[in-house]
Amino acid sequence: MTETATLSGREHATRLRADTTVEAARLTATGTPPRLAVVTATADESSAWYVRSIAKAAGKCGIHCDIADLGPDAAPAAIRDRLTELSADPAVHGIILQTPLPPGANAQELAGAIAVAKDVDGAGPLSLGRLTAGLPAFAPATAEAVVAVLDAHDIPLAGRRVAVVGRSTVVGKPAAQLLLARDATVTVAHSRTTDLAALTASADIVVAAAGRPGLITAAHLRPGAVVVDVGTNPTPDGGLTGDVDAASVTGKAAALTPVPGGVGPVTTALLLHHTVRAAATAHSAADSAA
Amino acid sequence: MTETATLSGREHATRLRADTTVEAARLTATGTPPRLAVVTATADESSAWYVRSIAKAAGKCGIHCDIADLGPDAAPAAIRDRLTELSADPAVHGIILQTPLPPGANAQELAGAIAVAKDVDGAGPLSLGRLTAGLPAFAPATAEAVVAVLDAHDIPLAGRRVAVVGRSTVVGKPAAQLLLARDATVTVAHSRTTDLAALTASADIVVAAAGRPGLITAAHLRPGAVVVDVGTNPTPDGGLTGDVDAASVTGKAAALTPVPGGVGPVTTALLLHHTVRAAATAHSAADSAA
Repeated sequence: MTETATLSGREHATRLRADTTVEAARLTATGTPPRLAVVTATADESSAWYVRSIAKAAGKCGIHCDIADLGPDAAPAAIRDRLTELSADPAVHGIILQTPLPPGANAQELAGAIAVAKDVDGAGPLSLGRLTAGLPAFAPATAEAVVAVLDAHDIPLAGRRVAVVGRSTVVGKPAAQLLLARDATVTVAHSRTTDLAALTASADIVVAAAGRPGLITAAHLRPGAVVVDVGTNPTPDGGLTGDVDAASVTGKAAALTPVPGGVGPVTTALLLHHTVRAAATAHSAADSAA
Repeated sequence: MTETATLSGREHATRLRADTTVEAARLTATGTPPRLAVVTATADESSAWYVRSIAKAAGKCGIHCDIADLGPDAAPAAIRDRLTELSADPAVHGIILQTPLPPGANAQELAGAIAVAKDVDGAGPLSLGRLTAGLPAFAPATAEAVVAVLDAHDIPLAGRRVAVVGRSTVVGKPAAQLLLARDATVTVAHSRTTDLAALTASADIVVAAAGRPGLITAAHLRPGAVVVDVGTNPTPDGGLTGDVDAASVTGKAAALTPVPGGVGPVTTALLLHHTVRAAATAHSAADSAA
């Protein structure tokens, strides 16, 4: 039996929020109060809960957060227009397009209307392409949180085998790019992967981002593997559960991020940190122009 | 001993060029003669040779090809301006930014000045991000040629393990995205990968795109693996050699693309095919506007 360490994200999130609060205060004092806009177009309850939690976390850091609720029947053109308008508004520094969106609206296509300098959740295709090409851009916060949690616990990445399970545009694919940029040897697995357990068992680090509760068990791991659980699957009792069967992997994995309390708090903290970075860049640009 | 099949790209390239020629003639007859612009800023001999070969191949298909040679001392801003100007020119349908570029010029950053609809070699970060997000965009021709050669020889991809050796923005990374979109389980390996031979030996298909002559040998393959050689390394006698040691892998690999005559001819044919597709889109848009 291996002692399985818990890779909490809470301490790192606390540090990030403290930095963000200091920077938000400095920017506010010098005439650039940081402002985040969240565009939402859904009646989805868990989305509404998440948006409120971002707004609350932003407020605690001294970041203004405007919620633009376009309603569940918003036309894609109306969403695009709002994103374009916010992109042009010099008082707004960060823009998030919340999902789910109404039927017929493509989140990636619409997120292309967010100016890349304000795309604090790395949602648009230009941000994704710049990230992949190694050019400056904000990474999707969840993908960056995967790397940040591993870094916070001093887990080396260079030369290590990492299996990313899940190929979503918002998590799996950008996480793979970030890990590759850190010199990991990265495999992206997905629902069509044959013999997933054999594949993940050849990895030093497994990143579970498939959105399937309990997908990863002890049978999927080599002894001593590090496991990052990105899953946030709702449970019937109103809680959250990850993609990893924590009871199963405990005693075989060397370390596991908890759900909740692992990747999640770091994700929110990174979104706010990106927002003050965007505000600081806007502030410097305004200074240079003055 | 396995009989190692040669996965030639010439026949597929010939078919693509024939389609392209028919389409170019149709577009020319209806008032939209397809036009490709190649922007170059180098004194590199092999680059000049490659640009001439594209121009010649374009001419044979009925595509006009303009070479904008800005010279080896061109400033990045001058390159960007020319790309912006060509992007705005309705008579130009495809734009290629040839590498190498002068010191201080970042190819990916500059390629961002190419309008995405004219980015026929998928060089800009927006094209790369759209490709990764599954949105319509031209893929880098070399990366697409990898998949096209495999398809032309009816080699299935879904559910298969593919190792891409090399993580360049122009080949390895986009090839990985295209293979992933075809439901392969894709690993990207690179110079910092430990025990490359063990990794590639676990793959059904190995794509060698590292730019290192003879890197892949029999020791890197499982018996019956399919090998795609993307390497085009110059030899002292003025020829080309791949990243695969063909003599070594023959008898162990099930199939291998030759160098030259494998991925290369398909790459050039795809560039021209993309150009007529871009011209056809521009033609339809002009028709709708009329």
